Amino acid sequence: MTDSSTPRVLVLSGEPPPGLESLEGQAELRLVGEDRLAAELPAADALLVWDFATDALPEAWPRAGGPRWVHTASAGVDRLMFPALVESDTVLTNARGVFEQPIAEYVAGWVIALAKDFAGTYARQRDRVWQHRVTERVGGTRAVVVGGGPIGRACARTLAALGLRVSLVGRTARADDPEVGRVHAFDELDALLPEADWVVCAAPLTERTRDMFDARAFALMKRGARFLNVGRGPLVVEDDLLAALRSGRLGGAALDVFREEPLPADSPLWDAPGLLVSPHMSADTTTWLDDLAAVFVDNFGRWRAGRPLRNVVDKKLGYVPYATPADGGHR
Amino acid sequence: MTDSSTPRVLVLSGEPPPGLESLEGQAELRLVGEDRLAAELPAADALLVWDFATDALPEAWPRAGGPRWVHTASAGVDRLMFPALVESDTVLTNARGVFEQPIAEYVAGWVIALAKDFAGTYARQRDRVWQHRVTERVGGTRAVVVGGGPIGRACARTLAALGLRVSLVGRTARADDPEVGRVHAFDELDALLPEADWVVCAAPLTERTRDMFDARAFALMKRGARFLNVGRGPLVVEDDLLAALRSGRLGGAALDVFREEPLPADSPLWDAPGLLVSPHMSADTTTWLDDLAAVFVDNFGRWRAGRPLRNVVDKKLGYVPYATPADGGHR
Repeated sequence: MTDSSTPRVLVLSGEPPPGLESLEGQAELRLVGEDRLAAELPAADALLVWDFATDALPEAWPRAGGPRWVHTASAGVDRLMFPALVESDTVLTNARGVFEQPIAEYVAGWVIALAKDFAGTYARQRDRVWQHRVTERVGGTRAVVVGGGPIGRACARTLAALGLRVSLVGRTARADDPEVGRVHAFDELDALLPEADWVVCAAPLTERTRDMFDARAFALMKRGARFLNVGRGPLVVEDDLLAALRSGRLGGAALDVFREEPLPADSPLWDAPGLLVSPHMSADTTTWLDDLAAVFVDNFGRWRAGRPLRNVVDKKLGYVPYATPADGGHR
Repeated sequence: MTDSSTPRVLVLSGEPPPGLESLEGQAELRLVGEDRLAAELPAADALLVWDFATDALPEAWPRAGGPRWVHTASAGVDRLMFPALVESDTVLTNARGVFEQPIAEYVAGWVIALAKDFAGTYARQRDRVWQHRVTERVGGTRAVVVGGGPIGRACARTLAALGLRVSLVGRTARADDPEVGRVHAFDELDALLPEADWVVCAAPLTERTRDMFDARAFALMKRGARFLNVGRGPLVVEDDLLAALRSGRLGGAALDVFREEPLPADSPLWDAPGLLVSPHMSADTTTWLDDLAAVFVDNFGRWRAGRPLRNVVDKKLGYVPYATPADGGHR
């Protein structure tokens, strides 16, 4: 922070975000686009990455060191894991708390929609065709949720509430997790995949998780199992998923994230058998912008008061380490 | 029952139902279609109404009195509430226990699908259009479930598990229901409708409930609320629902049951704004025929042993009165 009583906060955004009005007088908010980022960053005390899908930051990052605090209006921080920021003293925080429940609801809806063939029912309605079918129960089926952070945990809790038998896989095994009972380690995943009717990917994108769902993983799954991804596109080898759907190895899939977004119009994923394509919107509710702003405003108050920030990213891990409520952590 | 040691059980069905093999030697099962019903009924000890969508029974019912026991492979018994059966000593039982959870899952999926605009996402996928939208949270919204029987209760429990605030409306108010806390009486419905984001109809069809969802009821609902029906078609005045959807009074609806089934191809409901049309399949899972048969086989064993039958319909009420587990009842 500079000596000035009102810190200079850059807001990387095409247009003014809503919900920051309460900061008036407390911060000098400067709206910048990607083109002005390199010029403005050296004099900034903090940076709010509102347009989080930017790739401009690594190049714009000042050689002499960036702002002391960067906050991103996203859960994933993969685009911010460039060496100059990772190795700096800059504190990085994210939007944990905003996306968990909306994504968990989306995943629960997808599971039911796939089990009950809602897509087939919509198609028949369009054609005015009355065709009764029998569909599946979701209660009693088995799900593996990959991702021990708050999004994976919310998915696991919500699916369990629907009567599914859920195994949660995270970085670190825990025998007596206060929220979900047991957390399996990543290296147990191979043993869990063959039993799962549903595999839900809600992992952060790191060098360890990139491409983790590939032909090898799909070959381990039960014939007819379904695969869902609400993490990041590069967690999945899309060609391998496509092959698994076409061969019938997988009975269906649903993707909210893709290696290339927007998904190109000529992608074979659009009409892959049994695949639901959703345009990266599972987390985004009617109140999401206000919710995102509120997380930043809260953290700004903490920063000004010299109190610990919420949602501090461990830059070695590439995400906010999960601290359960019983650990004295927060959600 | 006749003096014969193996009772004669008529099975009203076009083809032999699965799952009745275990009755071999214990019952003389006679498969009949609607055309042979009147001729065969006088000599029958029991009747299994497997093709439950029949309207043939009132005319075929013997003047001298029907079989001592009729079991229907359905939850609703509205088609069996004709005077000769209602006023007879014939015991009527139904398929309670088979349909509750599948229907509750279907309803939960519909709520999420409507909140998250799954139909709009499917349509865009068909057209290869990537269009991000913001959608709604379901957690924290309010639902009114109408129907205090096992299907309504399962819907209420499942929606509550997703974080909705649920009010259950049944025939009889209860302040301390062991399953759902509180049950509101039907005459409280008018006061509950204006607060509801979701109104779920899971009531039995009786003279009291017929046409209960009409223009007056829809006018009481919050603007933009959604209406779901998994009960019976005649609970809803379809023209009034159509008008409420077209005027924007209702924000969407989902129907699994209709006044005329199959829904005629020229029905205006097929393309009513925001309406999901499902061909009476919410209850019907891959195991439903076996599950239905198992309920009958269980009851047959009780009947032969002179023990109380499960799922005895109160013919004055038109449904099986709900007995909670705490009452010593069964599900």
